[in-house]
Amino acid sequence: MRQLSTQDTDFEQQLKDLLAFETVNDVDLLKTVDDIIAQVRHDGDKVVLALTQKFDQHPATTIQELELSKQSLAEAFDSLDEKVKSALTTAATRVQTFHKRQVQETWQYEDELGNRLGQKVTPLDRVGIYVPGGLASYPSSVLMNAIPAKVAGVTEVIMVVPAPNGVLNPLVLAAAHLAQVDRVFTIGGAQAVAALAYGTKTIPAVDKITGPGNKYVAAAKRAVFGQVGIDMIAGPSEVLVYAEGEAHDRADWLAMDLLSQAEHDRIAQAIFVTTSSEQLAQVATEIENALAELPKADIARDSLQNRGALILVKDRSEGMALINRIAPEHLELSVDDPDALLDDIRHAGAIFMGRHTPEAIGDYCAGPNHVLPTSGTARFSSPLGVYDFQKKSSIIYCSEGGSKPLAETADILAQHEDLEAHARSARYRYQ
Amino acid sequence: MRQLSTQDTDFEQQLKDLLAFETVNDVDLLKTVDDIIAQVRHDGDKVVLALTQKFDQHPATTIQELELSKQSLAEAFDSLDEKVKSALTTAATRVQTFHKRQVQETWQYEDELGNRLGQKVTPLDRVGIYVPGGLASYPSSVLMNAIPAKVAGVTEVIMVVPAPNGVLNPLVLAAAHLAQVDRVFTIGGAQAVAALAYGTKTIPAVDKITGPGNKYVAAAKRAVFGQVGIDMIAGPSEVLVYAEGEAHDRADWLAMDLLSQAEHDRIAQAIFVTTSSEQLAQVATEIENALAELPKADIARDSLQNRGALILVKDRSEGMALINRIAPEHLELSVDDPDALLDDIRHAGAIFMGRHTPEAIGDYCAGPNHVLPTSGTARFSSPLGVYDFQKKSSIIYCSEGGSKPLAETADILAQHEDLEAHARSARYRYQ
Repeated sequence: MRQLSTQDTDFEQQLKDLLAFETVNDVDLLKTVDDIIAQVRHDGDKVVLALTQKFDQHPATTIQELELSKQSLAEAFDSLDEKVKSALTTAATRVQTFHKRQVQETWQYEDELGNRLGQKVTPLDRVGIYVPGGLASYPSSVLMNAIPAKVAGVTEVIMVVPAPNGVLNPLVLAAAHLAQVDRVFTIGGAQAVAALAYGTKTIPAVDKITGPGNKYVAAAKRAVFGQVGIDMIAGPSEVLVYAEGEAHDRADWLAMDLLSQAEHDRIAQAIFVTTSSEQLAQVATEIENALAELPKADIARDSLQNRGALILVKDRSEGMALINRIAPEHLELSVDDPDALLDDIRHAGAIFMGRHTPEAIGDYCAGPNHVLPTSGTARFSSPLGVYDFQKKSSIIYCSEGGSKPLAETADILAQHEDLEAHARSARYRYQ
Repeated sequence: MRQLSTQDTDFEQQLKDLLAFETVNDVDLLKTVDDIIAQVRHDGDKVVLALTQKFDQHPATTIQELELSKQSLAEAFDSLDEKVKSALTTAATRVQTFHKRQVQETWQYEDELGNRLGQKVTPLDRVGIYVPGGLASYPSSVLMNAIPAKVAGVTEVIMVVPAPNGVLNPLVLAAAHLAQVDRVFTIGGAQAVAALAYGTKTIPAVDKITGPGNKYVAAAKRAVFGQVGIDMIAGPSEVLVYAEGEAHDRADWLAMDLLSQAEHDRIAQAIFVTTSSEQLAQVATEIENALAELPKADIARDSLQNRGALILVKDRSEGMALINRIAPEHLELSVDDPDALLDDIRHAGAIFMGRHTPEAIGDYCAGPNHVLPTSGTARFSSPLGVYDFQKKSSIIYCSEGGSKPLAETADILAQHEDLEAHARSARYRYQ
């Protein structure tokens, strides 16, 4: 695992190399995805079924078999072990409680002219949530996507999840039950995105598609953006753990927090930043110790080797600058007084404060969303939230008297934009 | 201009044809744009200058000449006619006042376990605003893009505006001064988008790009989405005017409001919906009358012919359903009591209430933004706003005691997702 120091003469270049990650938008991929979308738009259900049989080896012979009944979701939930049922319920409740605080309300006010201005907030009618299948089929992802939509008041939440060979993680179905998902189709890939964006006879068209997926899903989401809304184009998951070698730090905890990111994926990224070279060495050792016992050591090792780093910074101020430069998806502040750092942090998807807040708690059950901006996009985007499932309409209500001065202003500006009909339309209101 | 009735047997198909509009994502366009982006990433300033000379016939011979000084912006403002200066200032002040209400604040709360959860709100560091040049170079667009960014607290607002033959509308520069734009480059097209997304030696990389543009700009924005944030892919502008043939309606006003949209562009869309066939006929007549006198009658006629419609609905409820189906960018409710309709309207970019609120007032100076979701995207997106220039980071701070029950829940769920490092990382906190 690479060890860097901001004092290295080539640190700048090393950091660039470390952070270099771009979704491959290769021409073949785009063409494949465009073809699939075109086919689904043209032949609907037939193509969706055929591609699901082909790519997922799904045994269904009709499109109807690709929809799961609400009954089957409820059964999946009911047959869970009590301990798991309770954990999942706790997670769902906490996620719901947090997200309720994000609900935006309509507001209006009267200006000094007697005109009324405002912003009307409305939930989306219908959204599609994409849940990856196979290895990365996580019940927590179902909760994190569906609950904000439901809290926002979305009328219908449609979930798609591919079921390779027809097999699904029952916890995913249980989570769909718990989150009150309205309909579930066991489809995936670009064909699922296309079906949700344009609709087929069986699968209803939605207004927005959220949720992570592989490169086909990402390319398809980019292609249908505009026809429907999308959340973001997710890259590999990352964590940045920051510490300052304080007495209460536990190198084994820090190491495991980094590994919990690295075990996700060979291209996941775990970065440790510290002001203490002793601590850096301890964490390196503890990572090796822990790797010896982890079932996914192979994946984690690759991830750390390819994209991980232990970085020594001179002081806190350099640390904060580095964090803002990286704009990590997950940021752990393993320090005695994380509040002292909070003001200086401008860019991060989620900030895990103090030693008792490992990322894993946020992944499952703290309450805030685990769908977070990756690859530095925290510079300009936010965690998935209720605000992604509500939208706004401006309200403008001019009184007869209040309209006149505004109409006069609009008249003048319209004339200078050479828009005579605009000017006349305004003039009617004050002359 | 086509006249439809919901009673027509083929109304459904006619409506589909009317609303059919898709940005042409033809392969040649995408390839051209991808090439330009690749060139700009590789050769930076040199390519930006060369393409600006080529596409805009700009006389500059160095990249530095493509930046306007703050001095020149101030001079453009100072030399405005007093009436225009005052109108522009009124517009800017009103836009600022409205947008201040959109500012979101950081919040935190303590849960029942003693953990602290919240959402930290931070402005973006640097944004780029694209202002179309030539014919559609509107000072109002500068205000509508730059002011929300400034209200959000964005550190640096960079404006790009192409200057065909080196010529610019002085009002655009004056508006940039008024809106406190930090830097202005007279560049446009895909090369401007690429320069803003990736940065060159002279043009700084931004975190988000907003503002409308032609099909090259739209394709380039789609391509760089992920590297930077973007607002939306704008389609042609539209208005839907709704009336019920009440006594106070003025057919000439209604006609001019429709024409103010139609004069924008041959593919702009103006739709009139009414419950009264008499009123429909009157408005048709008034449109013809007004067209006889408008300087842009030629453009407006094409727009009405190609994409306009006068639609008769049976009653209010059918009218509301049609509005929600169309999800218009601009919606005018020309009725005695528009508030009675407001609850039923789910999808519209901006709602202009009553007879004294023509779209033109909102275009310039009511206060709410005129950058609005087009082509039915009001189903899932919002007017441009301060929220587009702020982003959120989740805050999670578990106390030592409050962490334990959450860590236990996370442990159970992580085990069921086969993520052992997650489970152990959680377990450290409660065992």
